[in-house]
Amino acid sequence: MCHACQVSTLQSPSSSATSRAAAQLPAVCILGLGLIGGSMMRDLRNLGVECFGWNRSAATVEEATAEGFDASSDLRAVLERAEATGALIVVGTPVTAFEAMLEAINKYAPACGITDVISVKEVPQRTAEAMGVAERYVGAHPMAGSALAGWSATREGLFDGAPWVLAYDTAAEATAAGQPVPERWTEVFSQVALLGKALGSQLIPARVANHDEAVARISHMPHLVAYALAAAGEAGGPLAISLAAGSFRDGTRVAAAAPSMVMSWCESNTGAVLGALDDVIERLTSAHKQLAKENTATDLAESGNTARVRYEARPANRPIFRLRVGEGDWVSQLLLAESVGGQVDIF
Amino acid sequence: MCHACQVSTLQSPSSSATSRAAAQLPAVCILGLGLIGGSMMRDLRNLGVECFGWNRSAATVEEATAEGFDASSDLRAVLERAEATGALIVVGTPVTAFEAMLEAINKYAPACGITDVISVKEVPQRTAEAMGVAERYVGAHPMAGSALAGWSATREGLFDGAPWVLAYDTAAEATAAGQPVPERWTEVFSQVALLGKALGSQLIPARVANHDEAVARISHMPHLVAYALAAAGEAGGPLAISLAAGSFRDGTRVAAAAPSMVMSWCESNTGAVLGALDDVIERLTSAHKQLAKENTATDLAESGNTARVRYEARPANRPIFRLRVGEGDWVSQLLLAESVGGQVDIF
Repeated sequence: MCHACQVSTLQSPSSSATSRAAAQLPAVCILGLGLIGGSMMRDLRNLGVECFGWNRSAATVEEATAEGFDASSDLRAVLERAEATGALIVVGTPVTAFEAMLEAINKYAPACGITDVISVKEVPQRTAEAMGVAERYVGAHPMAGSALAGWSATREGLFDGAPWVLAYDTAAEATAAGQPVPERWTEVFSQVALLGKALGSQLIPARVANHDEAVARISHMPHLVAYALAAAGEAGGPLAISLAAGSFRDGTRVAAAAPSMVMSWCESNTGAVLGALDDVIERLTSAHKQLAKENTATDLAESGNTARVRYEARPANRPIFRLRVGEGDWVSQLLLAESVGGQVDIF
Repeated sequence: MCHACQVSTLQSPSSSATSRAAAQLPAVCILGLGLIGGSMMRDLRNLGVECFGWNRSAATVEEATAEGFDASSDLRAVLERAEATGALIVVGTPVTAFEAMLEAINKYAPACGITDVISVKEVPQRTAEAMGVAERYVGAHPMAGSALAGWSATREGLFDGAPWVLAYDTAAEATAAGQPVPERWTEVFSQVALLGKALGSQLIPARVANHDEAVARISHMPHLVAYALAAAGEAGGPLAISLAAGSFRDGTRVAAAAPSMVMSWCESNTGAVLGALDDVIERLTSAHKQLAKENTATDLAESGNTARVRYEARPANRPIFRLRVGEGDWVSQLLLAESVGGQVDIF
């Protein structure tokens, strides 16, 4: 407990735990020095991890270099250095550039482990499989984004306490088929998990389809619904906007998010977003029917109220499953943790 | 500007303005001493206005009396006193009790002016007309509610700076028909406006249908949508709830509101709520179609983002229209203020 701000710090790993994780990391090569990649670079330098990066824009490279960071706009040179130092490569670009990044990695860093920080996980996983890098690729989703973007938005401590989703379909599928988990993949999984741990995040295992279905419901849908609420409110004219108070303000807050950002999520997650939209539309349509027929919409109100009350009553700390990567029933532990939305700790 | 908390107090009327308004008020008789009625009683006592009230529950009457307030559970006696003192009667009960209150008022206080604080305005207006009290009734909606209820939730200053909607259909209809506004109605309007001004509220004129349409869009709809979002999120299972962050938390905040409260609004405003639901469902359905067909939902995202940006950029202060009740083009001023969501100041 921080006595000054009264915030519990119980969930933050001790700095010795993050230091120990950092000490086990290889060098880290970051492609794309935006909010996520750039903030990661700041923390890794503080942790004493060798870290270097690439960005397409010379302006960003200059900004990073001016602060003493090891950044370059020469992709080939950066990847050759990654290969020479056995670095873990973090793809920090938008999903639209992911395939091009893998192509360059295949050419100049054919042995390096690869992860990414993209907000959806199925499209990158399929892309990695199509590009023949699945055995050295472990998708991740550090849930620490914000509406801000670019180097100027980067900051230390961005990942501290935040969820760090780890996609482990390769291990789950091998185990389900009675096969051993590929050794190289297990090594990369260990590196990506250590990276999240070193940055102070909570490691949450999820298979790609389940992750994408979850974020469609709890992130993409709130954004689409906020857009619809804001537009419907404005359609009420000046009197409606004048009378708008807390429920409208909070319900439309994320409608301030850039359409291009929200669309980059939805367009890479159409199946799950369409399903979640169907669900929300169906609930509102049922409420419409009940209100028209029975003069009440109490079924929707009760189910939604119960869901919110349960959400508020969820445990303050995610349950922790401890495991040693690659040993014993570690894959079962990942499955178990995912089934309850729990976190894993690796040692 | 309050230098300690950096909050602008420019919009709060000076205490001399509220005192002047209070000095012009008759006695005030409040029926129903819940959050709204009880808080009003606290402020009126501080302002030196003669104020007495009724509540059905003896427990509430005891609580109020213990604090020195003039409260009783004898409705007839309270109303006879209102009639004898020429009080303005404020109906602070739920909409379901409104007709019964008017019946008692007709019996024991047949000359008093009447207002109410119900969250919808068309149903009370029609009820007042059906009960033959339209000429001495002016509906109001002080938008200062909260999830809390009962005497224990009452507090001083609840109405300070809050919107205080004034329904003026009687005046608008008379004027449109080339008739003079009934004198008695104008007197009651003046009293109800002075009451809002004395409590520090911003007086916002709105005809009942427009008010109900507006609150359907900016209050009832955010609540229904929050219920749908919360239920759809929970349907995603423990992983979804574990990954839920700011957009889900804020988008479902008001789903914590009691279904009975939200339903009491919707059930008295079915026409407007059904219309607003149609609008929101239509926007989400269009987004579904565009996403399925064109792999983007950018039309919804752009319109919603524009609406939210405009909402954030709205003027900090509602435009003020000054008028003298019953004089000159005062009804035109009310219509003008309503058309821009503005406030009126009376003098």
